[in-house]
Amino acid sequence: MSEKPISRFPPPEFAGLPRDVRERIEAVQEKSGFVPNVFLALARRPDEFRAFFAYHDALMEKPGGLTKAEREMIVVATSGVNDCLYCVVAHGAILRIRAKNPLIADQVAVNPRKADVTPRQRAMLDFALKVAQRSREVDDADYEALQRHGFSDDDAWDIAAIAAFYAMSNRLANALSIRPNDEFYAMGRERRD
Amino acid sequence: MSEKPISRFPPPEFAGLPRDVRERIEAVQEKSGFVPNVFLALARRPDEFRAFFAYHDALMEKPGGLTKAEREMIVVATSGVNDCLYCVVAHGAILRIRAKNPLIADQVAVNPRKADVTPRQRAMLDFALKVAQRSREVDDADYEALQRHGFSDDDAWDIAAIAAFYAMSNRLANALSIRPNDEFYAMGRERRD
Amino acid sequence: MSEKPISRFPPPEFAGLPRDVRERIEAVQEKSGFVPNVFLALARRPDEFRAFFAYHDALMEKPGGLTKAEREMIVVATSGVNDCLYCVVAHGAILRIRAKNPLIADQVAVNPRKADVTPRQRAMLDFALKVAQRSREVDDADYEALQRHGFSDDDAWDIAAIAAFYAMSNRLANALSIRPNDEFYAMGRERRD
Amino acid sequence: MSEKPISRFPPPEFAGLPRDVRERIEAVQEKSGFVPNVFLALARRPDEFRAFFAYHDALMEKPGGLTKAEREMIVVATSGVNDCLYCVVAHGAILRIRAKNPLIADQVAVNPRKADVTPRQRAMLDFALKVAQRSREVDDADYEALQRHGFSDDDAWDIAAIAAFYAMSNRLANALSIRPNDEFYAMGRERRD
Amino acid sequence: MSEKPISRFPPPEFAGLPRDVRERIEAVQEKSGFVPNVFLALARRPDEFRAFFAYHDALMEKPGGLTKAEREMIVVATSGVNDCLYCVVAHGAILRIRAKNPLIADQVAVNPRKADVTPRQRAMLDFALKVAQRSREVDDADYEALQRHGFSDDDAWDIAAIAAFYAMSNRLANALSIRPNDEFYAMGRERRD
Amino acid sequence: MSEKPISRFPPPEFAGLPRDVRERIEAVQEKSGFVPNVFLALARRPDEFRAFFAYHDALMEKPGGLTKAEREMIVVATSGVNDCLYCVVAHGAILRIRAKNPLIADQVAVNPRKADVTPRQRAMLDFALKVAQRSREVDDADYEALQRHGFSDDDAWDIAAIAAFYAMSNRLANALSIRPNDEFYAMGRERRD
Repeated sequence: MSEKPISRFPPPEFAGLPRDVRERIEAVQEKSGFVPNVFLALARRPDEFRAFFAYHDALMEKPGGLTKAEREMIVVATSGVNDCLYCVVAHGAILRIRAKNPLIADQVAVNPRKADVTPRQRAMLDFALKVAQRSREVDDADYEALQRHGFSDDDAWDIAAIAAFYAMSNRLANALSIRPNDEFYAMGRERRD
Repeated sequence: MSEKPISRFPPPEFAGLPRDVRERIEAVQEKSGFVPNVFLALARRPDEFRAFFAYHDALMEKPGGLTKAEREMIVVATSGVNDCLYCVVAHGAILRIRAKNPLIADQVAVNPRKADVTPRQRAMLDFALKVAQRSREVDDADYEALQRHGFSDDDAWDIAAIAAFYAMSNRLANALSIRPNDEFYAMGRERRD
Repeated sequence: MSEKPISRFPPPEFAGLPRDVRERIEAVQEKSGFVPNVFLALARRPDEFRAFFAYHDALMEKPGGLTKAEREMIVVATSGVNDCLYCVVAHGAILRIRAKNPLIADQVAVNPRKADVTPRQRAMLDFALKVAQRSREVDDADYEALQRHGFSDDDAWDIAAIAAFYAMSNRLANALSIRPNDEFYAMGRERRD
Repeated sequence: MSEKPISRFPPPEFAGLPRDVRERIEAVQEKSGFVPNVFLALARRPDEFRAFFAYHDALMEKPGGLTKAEREMIVVATSGVNDCLYCVVAHGAILRIRAKNPLIADQVAVNPRKADVTPRQRAMLDFALKVAQRSREVDDADYEALQRHGFSDDDAWDIAAIAAFYAMSNRLANALSIRPNDEFYAMGRERRD
Repeated sequence: MSEKPISRFPPPEFAGLPRDVRERIEAVQEKSGFVPNVFLALARRPDEFRAFFAYHDALMEKPGGLTKAEREMIVVATSGVNDCLYCVVAHGAILRIRAKNPLIADQVAVNPRKADVTPRQRAMLDFALKVAQRSREVDDADYEALQRHGFSDDDAWDIAAIAAFYAMSNRLANALSIRPNDEFYAMGRERRD
Repeated sequence: MSEKPISRFPPPEFAGLPRDVRERIEAVQEKSGFVPNVFLALARRPDEFRAFFAYHDALMEKPGGLTKAEREMIVVATSGVNDCLYCVVAHGAILRIRAKNPLIADQVAVNPRKADVTPRQRAMLDFALKVAQRSREVDDADYEALQRHGFSDDDAWDIAAIAAFYAMSNRLANALSIRPNDEFYAMGRERRD
């Protein structure tokens, strides 16, 4: 649709990219039908590209006490307070699809207190937002609040690590001005009832 | 879709409402196909309902130097910084429709600096956000910045008054917990190209 | 005394105003002995003038669980945190008169925690200030805190609506630079003991 | 009028105070007609009392490029942003008297940008407020802004030192809850025209 | 080592200083082996010099419920949140020496929540930081929290007064750009085990 | 020296770690003489360990327009505003060694405006701090400010990416409470003149 640049930096020549980077990009293209701009933007720097997506996969694709939809909720909520357009829009789409809920992403991005989440998920988001905004103040009481909702300490690590990884990602996308693909905005918005 | 309450306060009996309030509600129902929850929530207090919508119409429906889409941009941008779910979702839908642009509302709500707006619109939003967040600091330099983009002093009043009116509206919706109707989320998202 | 302009915008020709606007201005002149500048400033836009004062009257003149002095306390406290000179000075005068207390307005404007108010009034002001400054965080606990002091949910609506209305009014007065009349500063300061 | 305590700490027995402390208190009583509560509150600690007032006199009573009214403007403006009721009310009275202006104290306390001050005084207050709120960021540009209004570097020291001294004083008065004497509120409010 | 200026203002001619100022400077030189720059910077203004150090001694050298090391902890923690390089570095050195702990100063300056302090000291620092940053909100609950750790109300005064004095001192050092002597950085860092 | 835990999570059994993780830990032990706690803390999660250090190396060890000391300046300055004890202490040591300057780390951590850095380094730190604290506001003017000091756009990416990576790292260290090794505090503090 639009012909806007994908970021402040021009994308690299695809053919000149290392094979593993090209394969990762081709895989996401095949799965999604388009290449999310963050892949093209970061491909300019293959070592950073590899580390970024390895870290992403280690946090977002691993087994554990959080569902995949809950991990995306953390991404969208913390990206919302960081005003990161790329992450709110792109991960908002993923959240709608994973949660099978067309409303949840906008709710969580604008104000998690008004979102249709369980009390357990609300506690998860409270912790994530504290890590995102006031990590200096995290202490025992925050871990105990999670435990009261059944989260283990390893779940707490997962929540903290996802909030921290997107603290990085939000700053990169904001500073490099990575533009969300137009396709993301409408994905997963059809009603399911 | 959902059966969630429209706000912290139960809606009034429709039949018991004053005739002018009922007529306003019936008119919006006819035009939109549903009744936005803010009408039902405020109808509990007819005098406040009348003043609220009279003020709304005086600012949003009048002629002047701002287009209707630009007025909605101001609403969405200032509601974004106030984290008002109702106004971001409901006015986001109206903005998409009035601007004939399925992307603009999410852009303006999350980060107006990354939105596809003209430099003139960016200056308009900068002023609106200053009124919303730091009105104590508004001074001559802010009016001069608007003039450089062709805005008259009466346009400046319009921008300030819309930002101020939604400062009120955002606080009401947040404090009374007015829920945006499910219908708003997907409105105006179809591509137009 | 001073010949300073009443606001950034020149006042309209009085004779050219609609009759209902003129009558409202003549009534306040008769009652107060002078015309508060907000009336002249807003008269430039009769529709906004009418909606503004209709909303004001609906919130400030109605019966309910809050005394008129308490409503003015909310105005002065929230205008204080918004640094709105017009509202602190003009409503400070009204508060001193309605509360028959020459000290209360300065106390509430500078720091409500140090004011000579009852614990019930302190809870009312805490809620009002939260609506003014952090409405995104208002939740059940805030309503319960009010209930412990005997406030009904409709009283809570009143407090929230007054705080929200002056969030608008403060932004308008700051952005349009409406100057408080010199007469307000000394009104109601005589001791009553 | 009121019988409220002068601070969170009971005042010391007057007769038991060291002679120099008693003499200072008697002198201010004679001059003002009453004893400002800060004298009684600090007399509980004679060494701190002596250092506090010695510092006060060194900054507020010395000759230099600032008038006594301008020094009080700095006190009132910085005490306003620190929400210190004692200093706003007590020094507001002194400012009204020294400036022979019944309006200036409320203007400066609520919003210095709206106060009837000269551009030179506005630059002085901008510097003072930066020292009060963001001293970490003071740099060459701030000194140059003062120079453009004719302030010497020693004037800049005076402004900074007064802002710094009341940063201390505001915190003491807030933490010890020192109550302003009722007499201060109405002093200097009579019109002079 | 470095030849950087001691502050934005040149130091006064030593021989031309009043005798008591010279004697105080000579005493600290003898004790420390060098003259801390704050003495030379403030000597430019003998009356302020005398009041400053009289106040310092009244708070830091007096007997009372806080150890000398604990007083320095308050200085370092509050200077840390005020980003005052002079006070963090100079008083960090004094704290390391008085506490016989080479790690404590950096811990307290960067994040007191992660410092090796007792719960009682943590409560002391919480109160000091509240006085430094949000003195407007200090109330009964803060005094009660101190009492639960065995602090008397006079101890609370000490904590508040030290935090307030360094609120002044930090602003002076930042605004005058007083440079910490190179000697301070490494003092007290040798291990004691 | 101290026997404090390395973090909120117990370190993993060394022998049970994957070979590549063990080798990386042995290499740093050999080079530094001790194992920095972040290695032991993250080894609990080998995939995250690998991605973290791969990302670190891609940013901190690569060639480019920034010296290694300048990269550490960015780490220390941004960790300072995030109040991250681990990163300020550990990277402060590395910065002192790489810059061959025993003073620079404390200066940059407490207040970069008072640090002995070149104007070019000051511009670099201003950009890094904006990415750390207000990435939502980064725009063309920030890139132009860097260009005026000779930084290329790829240098800007480096600065932004380092600030972003430590935004993550600071949040992890704060949330997991990773304790800096005692050895770091005194490293690189000996004078070099």
